[in-house]
Amino acid sequence: MNTASHKGKLFIISGPSGTGKGTICKGLLDNPNIRVSISMTTRSPRVGEVHGKHYYFVTRDEFEKTIAEGGLLEYAEVFGNYYGTPKAAVVEKLDQGKDVILEIDVQGALDAKRIYPDSVLIFILPPSLEELRARIEGRGTETEEAINLRLSKALKEMSYIDEYDYYVVNDIIDDAIARTEAIMMAEHARVSESINDLIDKFREEEQCYTHQ
Amino acid sequence: MNTASHKGKLFIISGPSGTGKGTICKGLLDNPNIRVSISMTTRSPRVGEVHGKHYYFVTRDEFEKTIAEGGLLEYAEVFGNYYGTPKAAVVEKLDQGKDVILEIDVQGALDAKRIYPDSVLIFILPPSLEELRARIEGRGTETEEAINLRLSKALKEMSYIDEYDYYVVNDIIDDAIARTEAIMMAEHARVSESINDLIDKFREEEQCYTHQ
Repeated sequence: MNTASHKGKLFIISGPSGTGKGTICKGLLDNPNIRVSISMTTRSPRVGEVHGKHYYFVTRDEFEKTIAEGGLLEYAEVFGNYYGTPKAAVVEKLDQGKDVILEIDVQGALDAKRIYPDSVLIFILPPSLEELRARIEGRGTETEEAINLRLSKALKEMSYIDEYDYYVVNDIIDDAIARTEAIMMAEHARVSESINDLIDKFREEEQCYTHQ
Repeated sequence: MNTASHKGKLFIISGPSGTGKGTICKGLLDNPNIRVSISMTTRSPRVGEVHGKHYYFVTRDEFEKTIAEGGLLEYAEVFGNYYGTPKAAVVEKLDQGKDVILEIDVQGALDAKRIYPDSVLIFILPPSLEELRARIEGRGTETEEAINLRLSKALKEMSYIDEYDYYVVNDIIDDAIARTEAIMMAEHARVSESINDLIDKFREEEQCYTHQ
């Protein structure tokens, strides 16, 4: 155990569409001390979707009340439905000592970092733009024009990488997961204010010796 | 490969005597991309010690000339002999893309960080002061008084931990090595100025597409 305190950390994993951030996040969840954040949405549940597991399903009024209260780390409206990350649920898991991963787009990541500055931003990059194109083409669902638009959007998102703490090139998925896990482990080894609690514990131990 | 540039990094591993930093460093050297820095000394070579492998053996004049030229990351005089870390040899390995580990005491670590601010400081801690005492006692070579002096010195050194980047509690040696390796991997994933070279490469790729 390397933690001076047992608080979890919030890791925000984002990057352009097609870089495989979802697959990396799935790989991380094998670790029982890592939990994924659950989004709140105003869209209707699909068959099999469970409230509190896949999403928190709420009404538009409830969602807007949560926005007004500052209760969301980030949110966006997509095709008339709200999607967002409730802060309280994340903080609760962190207090339980779990790390929380939040997989969102670049805009959402930057919003969340502003609201929760202790979060750690990780940008997932493709090995090359050619490879990103190949992955999107491989899905076989998009026109050439749509693919070019996606690539332009990806480049625009990459221009925000300076605001991130870390980047991971997703060349081989297992390596990318290992690198992300290393980042999470290293972040718990950072010297921060809480280290003084640990050092104080050592000092108390010494006093016990000296006064024996 | 996750590096925007192929330059190595200098990791300075230190902490009180008895915390096992030497064993951690030995464990790290299984990785061919990690090299240990070689010290310069004025003491005479012992049987089997090879110049340029175990130490750089130099005269007192040569050592003092290197000090005067600012050629050492840190140095100290112990029982009338100089010991120090030559900067040029470290920089050469970093330029070859190797990570370099430097195992030194707390004073030397802080000196080296001042001279080479890009270095990463890692503090090795024992799981408890009691365990540190047990490890020193286990060597069976020291009086009770000498052991108490060592523990006081250890506590004094720990008071500098705020100036370090990371700490690793050496409870189980393999875990401590794994945490140190994670720190080294994560440091290569930090977003720094060199990330812009990687993003520029993506931009150039896009221009190739657009002008096809």
